Amino acid sequence: MNTINDLFNQKLRLLNIGAPNFKEDLELQQQDVIQIQWSPPVCSDPLLLQALAHFADNAEIEQANQQAAGNIINANPVLIGIEPAIKAIPGMTENTILHAGPPTTWDNMCGTVQGAVIGALIYEGRASGEQEARALAGSGKIIFSPCHEYSAVGPMAGIISPSMPVHIIKNKTHGNYAYCTVNEGLGKVLRFGAFDDKVIERLHWIADEFAPVLGRALQLTEVGIDTKVIIAQAVQMGDECHNRNKAATALFFKAISPYILKTGYPMETLERVLDFINANDHYFLNLSMPSCKCALDAASGIEKSTVVTVMARNGVDFGIKISGLGNQWFTAPANMVKGLLFPGYTDEDANPDLGDSAITETLGIGGFAMGASPAIVQFVGGTVSDAMQYTRNMRSITVAENNNYSLPPMDFKGAATGIDLLQVLETGILPVINTGIAHKVAGIGQVGAGIVHPPVECFEEALKAYSRKYTK
Amino acid sequence: MNTINDLFNQKLRLLNIGAPNFKEDLELQQQDVIQIQWSPPVCSDPLLLQALAHFADNAEIEQANQQAAGNIINANPVLIGIEPAIKAIPGMTENTILHAGPPTTWDNMCGTVQGAVIGALIYEGRASGEQEARALAGSGKIIFSPCHEYSAVGPMAGIISPSMPVHIIKNKTHGNYAYCTVNEGLGKVLRFGAFDDKVIERLHWIADEFAPVLGRALQLTEVGIDTKVIIAQAVQMGDECHNRNKAATALFFKAISPYILKTGYPMETLERVLDFINANDHYFLNLSMPSCKCALDAASGIEKSTVVTVMARNGVDFGIKISGLGNQWFTAPANMVKGLLFPGYTDEDANPDLGDSAITETLGIGGFAMGASPAIVQFVGGTVSDAMQYTRNMRSITVAENNNYSLPPMDFKGAATGIDLLQVLETGILPVINTGIAHKVAGIGQVGAGIVHPPVECFEEALKAYSRKYTK
Repeated sequence: MNTINDLFNQKLRLLNIGAPNFKEDLELQQQDVIQIQWSPPVCSDPLLLQALAHFADNAEIEQANQQAAGNIINANPVLIGIEPAIKAIPGMTENTILHAGPPTTWDNMCGTVQGAVIGALIYEGRASGEQEARALAGSGKIIFSPCHEYSAVGPMAGIISPSMPVHIIKNKTHGNYAYCTVNEGLGKVLRFGAFDDKVIERLHWIADEFAPVLGRALQLTEVGIDTKVIIAQAVQMGDECHNRNKAATALFFKAISPYILKTGYPMETLERVLDFINANDHYFLNLSMPSCKCALDAASGIEKSTVVTVMARNGVDFGIKISGLGNQWFTAPANMVKGLLFPGYTDEDANPDLGDSAITETLGIGGFAMGASPAIVQFVGGTVSDAMQYTRNMRSITVAENNNYSLPPMDFKGAATGIDLLQVLETGILPVINTGIAHKVAGIGQVGAGIVHPPVECFEEALKAYSRKYTK
Repeated sequence: MNTINDLFNQKLRLLNIGAPNFKEDLELQQQDVIQIQWSPPVCSDPLLLQALAHFADNAEIEQANQQAAGNIINANPVLIGIEPAIKAIPGMTENTILHAGPPTTWDNMCGTVQGAVIGALIYEGRASGEQEARALAGSGKIIFSPCHEYSAVGPMAGIISPSMPVHIIKNKTHGNYAYCTVNEGLGKVLRFGAFDDKVIERLHWIADEFAPVLGRALQLTEVGIDTKVIIAQAVQMGDECHNRNKAATALFFKAISPYILKTGYPMETLERVLDFINANDHYFLNLSMPSCKCALDAASGIEKSTVVTVMARNGVDFGIKISGLGNQWFTAPANMVKGLLFPGYTDEDANPDLGDSAITETLGIGGFAMGASPAIVQFVGGTVSDAMQYTRNMRSITVAENNNYSLPPMDFKGAATGIDLLQVLETGILPVINTGIAHKVAGIGQVGAGIVHPPVECFEEALKAYSRKYTK
């Protein structure tokens, strides 16, 4: 028999489902509580809830998603060459300018992207200065198109103009290609919207001296440089290959330098070319991105698959694509990035989320692999345990683990791969992206780096479209 | 009032001090137990217990140890040159051969070290083959001495003979120097006791072609290559700079290659020199070790300091030195290494713990920093959580944190630095060392890698000597 006193002293056995603050209150009262993680679906729209219920535990979808993830994981990107965009990229014309993110128009572009377009038109010799470039850009003569529509990707503004050399990555497994420009370094650079004389000069040097030497070196390798192997090693060396590419760049430098020495160019040229790679710890970003792109393109267009194949931002809108929905964009206004701003800048200076570099997260590295890249938090903010938690969380919204990219601090678990539209909406966990922050005004440059998520509306719109296509 | 029934159901509040298996038993009985870490002092000798009590909480010792740790932390190693040992190392003669670990004689050397001595005598042209070399080595004409007595360190057998080129590291802060040979690569190499023609040929090439080019490149740097900066970056990239030097070697390659290109040697020579560094991910070990050595030498000879300044093994004995006891060795038989053996080898093939490379652990990297180098467990065995626990444990036996070497996965805490003789004996926690395993027979080579601890007797002997010197 229990006395009242016993009842007060007795420990209860409690389960708390959902909001953890109830658990914490009970613990203050010395009670044992087991916490069950649960959160309501992120969307409250009855149509979406109905669709989620309809497509839950569907074996066909699961199979399609495993096929998509398999294609991503088995892709084998190799850097095989570097050529001017107009020569390398099918469909590129003298009047084409590719940009990051979903489609946009000159008038709707953010300042950063406009700045980079201005720089590209000056670099191409189509305009002598900012005013002329703005006039030409707004004249209707220039065809603006997303990089992603041309098997290409570009960091930040992501501008690719016809004579810019692009790295050519071949997916040896599936035979498709992806393209990306050469990374210019940090600070005042075209991709952050800067277009002063130094920026334009550097672009000319990349085209005139750098690219021919690198191209010749790549020919001499005969088989190219296997970027999958470099990424695999780099994620074991604290890179996540989006905002930290220090190890990957060093490994690429070690891999390419013997061939650069064999190109037969004068020693001073070789020194400048090697110094350019050597001096920029972000060189590999522009190899990491197209490596991811060619893997994800191999997972695109698989009937019924709900795997996300593109996440990209143009500085105004965030856009995603879904494997089973082919080339359709689902867009919503891009979020602001939360992170660390360089001294002298405030949130007021920052442009919203920008760039195709979220292709790394789409593959399962970048923000998804931050748990293996603890040093990144010094650049993008947060703590090491935040970084590890991001990586753990991403397992809840992905369909596979990529053991090619094994993360030592996470007990060598593979990168979380194959973002599932359905799981994102069921769990309410949005993909995590770490990213640079550009100044919103054309001509200034980078002002910081941080963490951002896609707007949930992209996923909601995608599910509606999926539902329309696949509900009989 | 409690009924018997209540008593059985009631939870007890328990503290368990010491052996954790009591705690686990109680937890099986659904009891809440708070575990208090405690272990009896490792030594049972009343003399030692008395000494530990006598020197506990002594402000003078603490101050001396902080000075020692400060010297270690503030040391600034820089690679400034490479020269033949006889030219670089004060006291070296034509008949001197330096070896790893505490003093030994030809007759007492393990097979691995004998093999390396044989190779060195052949390389020096003092013997035409194994028999002649053995005869000369045993003749009394050769002066065998520990590397550590000559400001030098050598991995594994650690053999330095007069004409071998040694890296010259200068401690810019304190003005002292340290020396180490060039790492030959893995497999059949002199330091693992191999001495066939290929081994000797490689040593000649290092002396005849490699060292002059690297020496000229280092002159061209004017200020040398700052190895402290490289180690600091490498421990943020998953190296612990003992058995994993992949990032450090890549960073060194990036740092030195521009100067190698400027040396004016023919392109084929430059290519061979660069390829040699490029192909050996352990190149930096032989820079990491003397970098640590010159820092620890700067902490030697501080009156009353109980900080360990040397841990080294000759394959038979393990030896340590204590700052406040100057150059005296305290030795005991070396332990066997527990780890992963290469296919085809068994524990029977393994030589006991060998080499000066434990100088890295003495500084606070190597095994002490394994928590920042999770990928190392694939080479030395164990799990990632073991690696992190080793690093945490080392905080219990060290007097400082070296924030120059900050470990990202451990929330950026600095490397545990300044091993304290007293804390080792009080806690019973022995320093952890990760290390290569050599075949015990001369001429074979490496057979694996693993984890090992020093014998506690070294520390016990050291405390007795300390007690004799410092007890009035």
